[in-house]
Amino acid sequence: MSQPIILYDIPGQGPVKAMSGNIFKARYTLAYKGLAFKSVWVESKDIEERMKAIGAKPTGRKPDGSDFYTLPVIQDPSTGAVVSDSFAIAEYLEETYPSTSTVFPRGSKALISVFDSTFMQGMGPMFPLIATTVYTKILPTSREYFRENAEIRFGTKFEDISPEGPKREQHWKNAKDFLGVVDGWYSKSGGKWIMGDTFSYADIIAGAWVRCFNGLFEGEKWEEISTWHGGRWGRLLEEINKYPILD
Amino acid sequence: MSQPIILYDIPGQGPVKAMSGNIFKARYTLAYKGLAFKSVWVESKDIEERMKAIGAKPTGRKPDGSDFYTLPVIQDPSTGAVVSDSFAIAEYLEETYPSTSTVFPRGSKALISVFDSTFMQGMGPMFPLIATTVYTKILPTSREYFRENAEIRFGTKFEDISPEGPKREQHWKNAKDFLGVVDGWYSKSGGKWIMGDTFSYADIIAGAWVRCFNGLFEGEKWEEISTWHGGRWGRLLEEINKYPILD
Repeated sequence: MSQPIILYDIPGQGPVKAMSGNIFKARYTLAYKGLAFKSVWVESKDIEERMKAIGAKPTGRKPDGSDFYTLPVIQDPSTGAVVSDSFAIAEYLEETYPSTSTVFPRGSKALISVFDSTFMQGMGPMFPLIATTVYTKILPTSREYFRENAEIRFGTKFEDISPEGPKREQHWKNAKDFLGVVDGWYSKSGGKWIMGDTFSYADIIAGAWVRCFNGLFEGEKWEEISTWHGGRWGRLLEEINKYPILD
Repeated sequence: MSQPIILYDIPGQGPVKAMSGNIFKARYTLAYKGLAFKSVWVESKDIEERMKAIGAKPTGRKPDGSDFYTLPVIQDPSTGAVVSDSFAIAEYLEETYPSTSTVFPRGSKALISVFDSTFMQGMGPMFPLIATTVYTKILPTSREYFRENAEIRFGTKFEDISPEGPKREQHWKNAKDFLGVVDGWYSKSGGKWIMGDTFSYADIIAGAWVRCFNGLFEGEKWEEISTWHGGRWGRLLEEINKYPILD
């Protein structure tokens, strides 16, 4: 690999621009494999145009049936490849750089792909809370676009997605319940990682979202989350942050 | 191990009495590990009383909040252990007989427990079809009990759970769609098993249900199922049937 891989990410307002759970997955994968990479920042409102321009594949469809583009996307100058979707990026990096540390050890790829979709489905009931918080962190120039899309996605006025009060409390309960399920998975593993003593992409999935929470709910709320389930999430963040994900 | 493990199963009317997907999981686990076992047949209507009598744990709750007992349950004369639930049985056998072939290779237990619950959830939309067919295969003495319980579970008159016609066709479509998802998981594995070249409890889960379909939908319908998804299910049944699950 002669030139660093380009990672397209969405900038937040803070000094650490990275904030998206799914994009943290690509960051941890690149970092764990020791591959050099360089961030290119694209505001949400510009993703479609920019990704079409580099020939990235859409990752889904909008309600009107047209192509939907999301990040992360990577562009690898050494091969010319442009790859969308965090799991597909992990697969691409495994195949293209087989001498780097593997994130799918010992025949685990199919099992981890099931883990990935089950994890994302389990996150569903806390997305209103995440979307509402992300909104406060993105650049002002992307707010209108973000708001319109969130209203379509959740089928309600933006202010009603996760307002302070009982609805927001329920979303926090959903978050804690789901992390309780993930804690149960870790408890079954017999080690500190999902595959026992072996780090894998399953830990990248969980770690990426914990890192996302850490950024979104910084301060007192994160302090609370980090103590849930016997302190599992504080420890996981500390462990996974050994990999340098910011360029 | 001096005496065979007792496996409690529900008898069907055919010459091969075994017919339950979840109980086939315990059979394949015992067979793959080469552990001697002996079937004891318990009709559905008698499960609660018989399992209470041997000190088996319930596996859930009834709608009225009281304990719910299911099979498989195993009783191991060598240790005195009584274990309910197919996954817990696999865990028990792994721990108690560590020198036998493992069904959770290489740190895969937590990932396979996620696979197990995701698989069972995916089966949900075809359960009406399964329940309606199982009813025709159980002993006449258990029919009334089975019918009453199915009506509570599906919240409708037994005849309306999966009647011939568009509703049944939809349940068949659900079955084919879900097997399509499972086929996608196998395709990701890079081998003939979910863990590539390595057999695991994930294949026992899929294989047990395929074996169940083979028994329930014998004849023309099974011939059709066995050709779905490039013949994946016919091949899986053939492969997994190398393990002798009938005592």
